[in-house]
Amino acid sequence: MSAPDLGRRALLKGGLLGGAGAFTLAGAVASSGAASEGSAPGTSSTGTADLVVPFHGEHQAGITTPPPPHAVFVGMDLDDGVGTTELGRLMRVWTDDISRLTAGVAPVTDQEPEVAARPAGLTVTVGWGPGLFDRLGLDDRRPSWLAPLPPMPVDDLDEAYGGTDLLLQLCSHSPVPLAHARRLLVGAARGIATPRWVQPGFRDPGEQAGLAFRNEFGQVDGTVQPDVADRDADLLWIGPASASHPGWVGGSSLVLRRIRMDMEDWERADRVAREHAVGRDLATGAPLTGGEESTPVDLHAVLPSGLPVVDRHAHVRRASPHAPHERFLRRPYSYEQVGTDGTVETGLLFAAFQADPVRQFLPVQRRLAEGDLLNIWTVPVGSAVYAVLPGCAEGDWLGRALLV
Amino acid sequence: MSAPDLGRRALLKGGLLGGAGAFTLAGAVASSGAASEGSAPGTSSTGTADLVVPFHGEHQAGITTPPPPHAVFVGMDLDDGVGTTELGRLMRVWTDDISRLTAGVAPVTDQEPEVAARPAGLTVTVGWGPGLFDRLGLDDRRPSWLAPLPPMPVDDLDEAYGGTDLLLQLCSHSPVPLAHARRLLVGAARGIATPRWVQPGFRDPGEQAGLAFRNEFGQVDGTVQPDVADRDADLLWIGPASASHPGWVGGSSLVLRRIRMDMEDWERADRVAREHAVGRDLATGAPLTGGEESTPVDLHAVLPSGLPVVDRHAHVRRASPHAPHERFLRRPYSYEQVGTDGTVETGLLFAAFQADPVRQFLPVQRRLAEGDLLNIWTVPVGSAVYAVLPGCAEGDWLGRALLV
Ligand code: HEM
Ligand code: HEM
Repeated sequence: MSAPDLGRRALLKGGLLGGAGAFTLAGAVASSGAASEGSAPGTSSTGTADLVVPFHGEHQAGITTPPPPHAVFVGMDLDDGVGTTELGRLMRVWTDDISRLTAGVAPVTDQEPEVAARPAGLTVTVGWGPGLFDRLGLDDRRPSWLAPLPPMPVDDLDEAYGGTDLLLQLCSHSPVPLAHARRLLVGAARGIATPRWVQPGFRDPGEQAGLAFRNEFGQVDGTVQPDVADRDADLLWIGPASASHPGWVGGSSLVLRRIRMDMEDWERADRVAREHAVGRDLATGAPLTGGEESTPVDLHAVLPSGLPVVDRHAHVRRASPHAPHERFLRRPYSYEQVGTDGTVETGLLFAAFQADPVRQFLPVQRRLAEGDLLNIWTVPVGSAVYAVLPGCAEGDWLGRALLV
Repeated sequence: MSAPDLGRRALLKGGLLGGAGAFTLAGAVASSGAASEGSAPGTSSTGTADLVVPFHGEHQAGITTPPPPHAVFVGMDLDDGVGTTELGRLMRVWTDDISRLTAGVAPVTDQEPEVAARPAGLTVTVGWGPGLFDRLGLDDRRPSWLAPLPPMPVDDLDEAYGGTDLLLQLCSHSPVPLAHARRLLVGAARGIATPRWVQPGFRDPGEQAGLAFRNEFGQVDGTVQPDVADRDADLLWIGPASASHPGWVGGSSLVLRRIRMDMEDWERADRVAREHAVGRDLATGAPLTGGEESTPVDLHAVLPSGLPVVDRHAHVRRASPHAPHERFLRRPYSYEQVGTDGTVETGLLFAAFQADPVRQFLPVQRRLAEGDLLNIWTVPVGSAVYAVLPGCAEGDWLGRALLV
């Protein structure tokens, strides 16, 4: 099995995809449509519909990409009897499908090419879970840190949202190409892997592009982040020194925690209590120690009474790093799970990316689980950890270096 | 109980809301926020976040309003022991809350005023179901046509999505104010009414403003519509001649059908079969008899073989009116219901507005139920009918004329 062995689809794909070329292509598809088809919905070029995020590269897209308003996480398990050959086949097909879908080019098997033509910034990010390595006996390729998080005292985990063998994270400015890409990629895995859960999430489309957003508690969430584009790149990407196998260099890890938020109880608390729970102003996201959203929190500030301004159990105090490596990229989405009985569960799909979750993420998670005022209103109900594959160059496929 | 008797909240509301004034107000709230709070998420004025659709008027908003990308329908039942007094109280509170929320002004009980400040074109439309009249003994106010649709041979109805006493239809450009308004309005009904179902829907935010959109089958859906702004206004709004009670003048009716769409089977059919099922081109939405999306279908066109171009059982033939009154305003949304087992149900929240559903809608529904090629891939799983209240002027409240 060699890198260029992409079969019939690769031929059709030719050299059209990737980088700046991809943008042009999707633009061309959409505008030729608009020209010949008048104002038919789904053919005009307005807003973000034609946006293309390049797929090929050292890292996968969808990690440092500013989070668009819609996401869906799909956890899949390998079917019984599947081996590394079948996994390799799936990774090649997914690579080809993802490179096309994200570029606004319908895969040949696509029955809704008009939807595919408007990717609206679609990204698809692929991860492998601990079970995949167990099942396929790939222990020599397994990152040392790849395991479920240990149980936390706050957890009330539902196995329905536990770790799976495979993960797809899809993000887009529109739920329509998102649903379409999900169906196509899940369909392409038939006979190899089956979804165990599907978790859709959202953000406000009116937010400015960036990491912070207003979550369902009304908080500004996502302010303090490592500088992953520059100084802190090592906190995000697996490097040659720490990689358990060279095939992981350029990859990362994802911790996905499904955290239920008790809206009713939260809204019964007064504003002062709610701001103290986090240590930041609800309206602006500024620290209670003053300034604006971007001002660093002063954890040493004290009131005239001698008490700390930021409570000992405030979320930002407990979550703040005790060592420079205890940091990670937070890229969460809000969720609403509508029941068939008129109830709606509200929460956060907390998604954190880092090079090593045990070293970077776990100490923070432990501190929060042991004493975070936010725990009064939040309960983790799902938890999963994935190794996120490095990106791939044109002609190559995701995970090849780990499978051949 | 008199019209101006709005209590404390009305005082706070003052004369600020309504029409053009409302737009200014929301704009002011959002921009003052942006000025004092820098770039905090949820305070900047980008895109559609500050859009305000006027609430007060002859008709409720959310009917002729171009459908924004997000909607949620909430079906609620009156609690045991609730009488007309309590219903009146609820309608006054809802009117006040809705007039504020849609204007971007947080109700006094609102715990997330920063979310309320960005309504993103929020509309809320209120309807009353048949059960409300039965329960409250309001038979003399009941529209003659207000009853569940008779069972259809294609139906596979789930009571979980059946008719309820009350309906809220919320629409917005953002799921965030939508979720917030839903929670607030459901909370305001506590002790009076309880949700039986919640049905969220979506459209592509990249569509041009208008009624047609690309549904999950990839079809251009919503092209042929009555001219409700002008010539066909009588088809939409209840007039003095047909109103069973003067309190209904300016109102309408809503038929909400939850229709499951079998994506897998649909995608197994070839393009020709799928286009024949409807009678229109999948890419452009143009009739198979030629032209573009807006060209009328020629139902008499025949092939050289003598067979009709548009199949005898094509959806557009069966759905086309046999009399001029057999028309209605279609304003549907796509839905995805994510199960806890990794499955996703896809479908259409088919929503039709008309002055009289029995006269206008039912004959078309019967023809479709008896022989529509689309039935191969679609199954109605929910069905509900509502009387949609007329709009109200400033200082008045929804349904007052029917309750006092
Ligand atoms: C529903 C659950 C959660 C909510 C509502 C929430 C909300 C917030 C908010 C409002 C902030 C302040 C603004 C910011 O810097 O983003 C914050 C900061 C932070 N949160 Fe969370 N969070 C949740 C769960 C978690 C979890 C599970 C972790 C990791 C285990 C975490 C880690 C952090 C970190 C590292 C910060 C920055 C702390 C600093 O200032 O150094 N959060 N969160
Ligand atoms: C999942 C179910 C359905 C799908 C996918 C669907 C799809 C479509 C499509 C693609 C068109 C052609 C373009 C247009 O004019 O909008 C159409 C037309 C139409 N549909 Fe449906 N439809 C569905 C259910 C219904 C139902 C339940 C009704 C009413 C009982 C209905 C009534 C109509 C009408 C009146 C037209 C216009 C017919 C004309 O050309 O005069 N549809 N539909």
